[in-house]
Amino acid sequence: MEKRKQVILGIDIGGTNVAFGFICKESRAVEWKDSEAMIQFSEAWMLADRLFQKVPPQFELVGIGIGAPNGNYYTGSIEFAPNLPWKGVVPLKRIFEEKFGVPTVVSNDANAAACGEYVFGNARNHPNFLMMTLGTGVGSGLFVDGKLVLGSDGMAGELGHFMVVPNGRPCGCGRNGCLEAYASSTALIKQYLEKSKMQETISARDVVERWKSGDPIATEVMQHSIEILGMSLANFVTIHSPSMIVLFGGWAQSGEWIIEKINHAFEKNLLEIYRGKVMLVSSRLPGSDSAVLGASALSF
Amino acid sequence: MEKRKQVILGIDIGGTNVAFGFICKESRAVEWKDSEAMIQFSEAWMLADRLFQKVPPQFELVGIGIGAPNGNYYTGSIEFAPNLPWKGVVPLKRIFEEKFGVPTVVSNDANAAACGEYVFGNARNHPNFLMMTLGTGVGSGLFVDGKLVLGSDGMAGELGHFMVVPNGRPCGCGRNGCLEAYASSTALIKQYLEKSKMQETISARDVVERWKSGDPIATEVMQHSIEILGMSLANFVTIHSPSMIVLFGGWAQSGEWIIEKINHAFEKNLLEIYRGKVMLVSSRLPGSDSAVLGASALSF
Repeated sequence: MEKRKQVILGIDIGGTNVAFGFICKESRAVEWKDSEAMIQFSEAWMLADRLFQKVPPQFELVGIGIGAPNGNYYTGSIEFAPNLPWKGVVPLKRIFEEKFGVPTVVSNDANAAACGEYVFGNARNHPNFLMMTLGTGVGSGLFVDGKLVLGSDGMAGELGHFMVVPNGRPCGCGRNGCLEAYASSTALIKQYLEKSKMQETISARDVVERWKSGDPIATEVMQHSIEILGMSLANFVTIHSPSMIVLFGGWAQSGEWIIEKINHAFEKNLLEIYRGKVMLVSSRLPGSDSAVLGASALSF
Repeated sequence: MEKRKQVILGIDIGGTNVAFGFICKESRAVEWKDSEAMIQFSEAWMLADRLFQKVPPQFELVGIGIGAPNGNYYTGSIEFAPNLPWKGVVPLKRIFEEKFGVPTVVSNDANAAACGEYVFGNARNHPNFLMMTLGTGVGSGLFVDGKLVLGSDGMAGELGHFMVVPNGRPCGCGRNGCLEAYASSTALIKQYLEKSKMQETISARDVVERWKSGDPIATEVMQHSIEILGMSLANFVTIHSPSMIVLFGGWAQSGEWIIEKINHAFEKNLLEIYRGKVMLVSSRLPGSDSAVLGASALSF
């Protein structure tokens, strides 16, 4: 009998879609992937049932990794995620382990992204590195000595809520001046629309493009936000002295040009002993695969 | 033949004095301690020679821990410490291991203090905790999962150089707005003298005492500095989610009253998910023993 290929199932749960894929344990390649609309899974066990049917018979499933908003590694549960159809505490690890009979690891999306970067991406030889995701919110995942930092309660890595401007812009968390209120995609758009008094639909990448073509409001917004991002990253370095910082997410991945700008603000704000020692890069994982790869990496 | 007591030699190297003590490995008690003026040791090997003569014959020395400004755990050297008579890179670990023939660990003072707190102090059951020393400067040492965080180059834990006030007070590091420029003993004194236009010699504890007795300038300085300290500690928590923060150093150890004030500023600035979860305490190690205990703890 031929030996079946061992695979990990990576699942990325989002507000609208759930993406999933089977990653070969040996080659680390994505064998097969797909996504489903979240709306059809009013209960978490329905998702487990559906995905169970999807396991191709030629594969031997050996592990599952799930990245989800408010996913807690220690408890294996999703806890009070505001943007999911599932309310309260959802014991995802238990549900999936009962259904599939293989070890399942649950964590939040930013931690999953950090694991993905460590297993498959730029950070492979960097046991001390920071992953920062700049999307609707700002998330972060941190590796110290080759291990993901989870903190005393699994809630470590909320760098988006670093308060960087005393009495600054209001943040969704109820406080003021958080990094997320300046450097998330949402914050870039919001600041641009406020200052331009325009009423249109634009993306964070549009704001970057307008900056490139000399739009003064876009320039002001981007320069200010990048200054604050650079200072926050420089502050972060004084704690851990990582050898690399990886940025992930729409606007930060719009080319080398933007990384150079962020790097300039970063280096300028670094304490001298760290200058020139920390590589600042954008993620090179293919956008379409990265979430699924990250989720699976939790299980690697 | 009677078995000799196994001891660790803890050495705390400072600008003016070197304190040292022999700590029993079994009972963890300080068996004997002393100090010497640094001025007589123009070379590091002279210190090793002197301390070698001091090992009581009834003890079996099994390890040495050295806390020193700019001490690097990875290299075992002191690197360019501005306030020591020894210039450049001093290979302390090699010098002591050659002289004594026992394993020697070198780290900076704040890391030594953190180890002391983890081995002997309040943080004994807190594998995820932060130690902050508020003295001439502000130093920090960090434990994640029961291990001291050293970073990619041994330089982690410079939380004193968190930039907390954009374009704020000048700091000794050449930048502006660092925590150290607000919360070190030196900074409290400096701010008080600037605002009061007085020319006298006072200590940080004096500023605290004046605050207690209603002095308006002391009140302003202390409230502002404590607000900034509280915000910095709250920012720090968003990264690691520690279960405890231990404060060490003159003014922060002037009683429960001051800890309550700092705790108030800290809790107020915390992200909601962390509120009420992090114990903020002052070190309870006896001031006279703490440096030597901390240094020895590096070797435990």
